[in-house]
Amino acid sequence: MELSYQAISLRLVEPLRISYGASFDLTNVSVRLEHGGVVGLGEAAPSAKFGETPATVAAALDLFRPALQRDPLHREAILSDIEKRLEGNRAAKAAIDFALHDLAAKTMGVPLYRLLGLDPAATTYVTYTIGIDTVEAMVRKAVEAGRKYKYLKVKFGCPYDREIIEAISAATPAIIRADVNGGWEARYAVRFINDVLTKHRVEFVEQPLHPADEKGMELLYRESALPLVGDESIGTVDDIVRLADRLDGVNIKLMKCGGIRPALQMIATARALGLKVMLGCRTETSLAITAAVHLSPLADFADLDLHLMLERDPFLGATIDGEGRFVLPTGMGLGVTSLA
Amino acid sequence: MELSYQAISLRLVEPLRISYGASFDLTNVSVRLEHGGVVGLGEAAPSAKFGETPATVAAALDLFRPALQRDPLHREAILSDIEKRLEGNRAAKAAIDFALHDLAAKTMGVPLYRLLGLDPAATTYVTYTIGIDTVEAMVRKAVEAGRKYKYLKVKFGCPYDREIIEAISAATPAIIRADVNGGWEARYAVRFINDVLTKHRVEFVEQPLHPADEKGMELLYRESALPLVGDESIGTVDDIVRLADRLDGVNIKLMKCGGIRPALQMIATARALGLKVMLGCRTETSLAITAAVHLSPLADFADLDLHLMLERDPFLGATIDGEGRFVLPTGMGLGVTSLA
Repeated sequence: MELSYQAISLRLVEPLRISYGASFDLTNVSVRLEHGGVVGLGEAAPSAKFGETPATVAAALDLFRPALQRDPLHREAILSDIEKRLEGNRAAKAAIDFALHDLAAKTMGVPLYRLLGLDPAATTYVTYTIGIDTVEAMVRKAVEAGRKYKYLKVKFGCPYDREIIEAISAATPAIIRADVNGGWEARYAVRFINDVLTKHRVEFVEQPLHPADEKGMELLYRESALPLVGDESIGTVDDIVRLADRLDGVNIKLMKCGGIRPALQMIATARALGLKVMLGCRTETSLAITAAVHLSPLADFADLDLHLMLERDPFLGATIDGEGRFVLPTGMGLGVTSLA
Repeated sequence: MELSYQAISLRLVEPLRISYGASFDLTNVSVRLEHGGVVGLGEAAPSAKFGETPATVAAALDLFRPALQRDPLHREAILSDIEKRLEGNRAAKAAIDFALHDLAAKTMGVPLYRLLGLDPAATTYVTYTIGIDTVEAMVRKAVEAGRKYKYLKVKFGCPYDREIIEAISAATPAIIRADVNGGWEARYAVRFINDVLTKHRVEFVEQPLHPADEKGMELLYRESALPLVGDESIGTVDDIVRLADRLDGVNIKLMKCGGIRPALQMIATARALGLKVMLGCRTETSLAITAAVHLSPLADFADLDLHLMLERDPFLGATIDGEGRFVLPTGMGLGVTSLA
C-alpha cells in the first residue's frame, strides 16, 4: 500500500468551552492508503493531552510504513503489527485503522456497515453539545439546538451549574445528558446529582469526577440516583475492565482507543460487563465522525457532533435526518467524499 | 431468505471416551439459507447435555423463520432478534450464524476470513484428541497421531491417569494438553498437576474440576503450577467474566455459544481480561469445523479435530498441512463444499 498524508486546518465556529479548557483552531491529519487503484481514507485528530500533535502523527505514520507492506485485507495482522511498533499514538493508529476499513469495504464493493453486518437503519440519534458559556448564551444555543435535536449534551463544572440546568431545562423539551469533564468533587457530585439534576430531564451524568479519583467514583456509584458514564477515565479496554464496577456506561472514542478494531473490542467487553455504550469524538471532520457513525448501530448513545461546529468541513459523509438521527452514506467503504 | 435443513447421520470411527461418558453415533442438522441465488450453509451439533436434540434444533429453526425475513447482510440485527425469540438452543443459533456469515462473504465475493480481516496464514496447529482407553491403546494412538501432529489433547479423569501420562510422554515427542473434562477433585488436582504433570511435556490443563466446583477452581488456580483452561465451565461470555480470576484461558465452542458473532464477543472479552483463547468443537463435520478455523487467527490453541474421527465427513473445508497446521479453503464464504 502507498501511504500519504496531509495536515488539514480546522476552525470551530466559536470556541467550545468545557470544565478544564476551551478549543478553537486546530490541525488534524488526513491519511490516504492506496492499493491497486483503490483508495482508503483516514483521519487523525491529535490531542495534546495525550502527547499528540500533527507532527507526532506524521512521525508515527512514517514509522508504521513497513507494516503496510502486506495484503491490505489482513487488517488484524497489520493493526497488531502497528500496535507493537509504538506505544500510544492512537490518533495516528486510528487514521490507519479507518483507511484500512475503508479500503477493505471498497475492495469488497460494500459500505462499511455491511462489512460489519450492521443495519444502517439502526443508527443512533445525535447528541448536540452545549459548551460552557454565560447562562443566557447557553440557553439560547440549547433552545436553537433543541428544535433540531432530541438530545443535548450540556457541559457542567463551573460556578453556576445550578443556574445552567434550571434555565436550560425550563427553556427546551430536549433530553439532557450532563457532561462534567471531571469538574466535580465526589461529595458535591452526590448532592448535585441527587438534589438538583434528578429534578430535571437529565438522562445520565458523564465523567463527574477527575479520572484520578477512582475511590470517589466508587462512592458516587453507590450513591448517585442517575447513571454514570466514564469518558476521561476510559482510554482503552483495560480501563473498562478496571472501572466496570463503578460505572453504568462508557464513552468510547475511536481517536483515543486507536480506531474501529479496538473500539469493537471495547464494545464487546463493555457489553459483557453489563455497561451501556456511548460513542464520542474529538474535534473531527465528517471523515472520522462517519467512521464512528458506522459503528453506531452497536451503541446506545452517540455524541458525534463536533464536525457540525466546524467553520468548514472538508468531507461529506454521514448526514442527519429531520428527526435528528444519523443517516449513513450509501457509498462503498466509509462512504466519505472529499470536498477539497 | 429461504431456510431449509436436514438431518445428517454421523458415526465416529470408534467411540470417543472422556471422564464422564462416550459418544459414537450421532445426528447433526445441516442448514441452508438461500437469498437471491446465493446459498449460505450452516450446521447444528445438538448436545443432549444442553437439552438439545435434532428435533429441538428443527423446532428452534422453524421458530426463527420470521427473523430471517430481513436483509441477510444485517447479521447483527437478525442474530439479536433470534436471541430474543428463544433462550438457549445455541446449536440451532450457531447454524443460522454460520449460514449468515457464509452468505454475507459469498455476496461480497470473499472468503470469510477476509470479511473478518484475518490473515489465513495465521491459523493455529491442530490439537489431536486421544480419548480414554487402555493405556496400551492410548499409547498406540498417541504415537500414530504424534507423527502427524505437534499437539495432542490427552483425556484424563480415570483410575490410571498417572500410567497414561507416563506412558504417552515416554512414547511420543508431541506436546501434551491435558483435558480432564471435570473429572478431578481440587486437592487431588493440585497434587497430580504439580507432582506428576509438571514432570512431562504438559502445556496446560483443561477443565480439571467439575464446573460446579467454582470454589475449588479458586484454590486450584492459586496452587497449580500449570496454566488452567476452562471448558465445561464456559458456556457464554458471562461465564468468562465470572471466572476470569481463576482461569488462564477459555475454550470457546461455537456450538455452545451460538456461532461466530458471540464467539467474537467472547474472544474480545477474554483478551480484555488477559485470558488465552482456545477454540473447541463438538462432534461436527468439516462445515462447522471450518467456521471455527476461520476464527483461528484470533486464537492461541485450536482443538478442532472431531471431523477427523468421522467414518464419513459429508463436507470438504479446511484441511491440514504436513506440519499439522490448518489450511483455510480459498473459496468464497466458509469455502465449504458438500460431498453428498
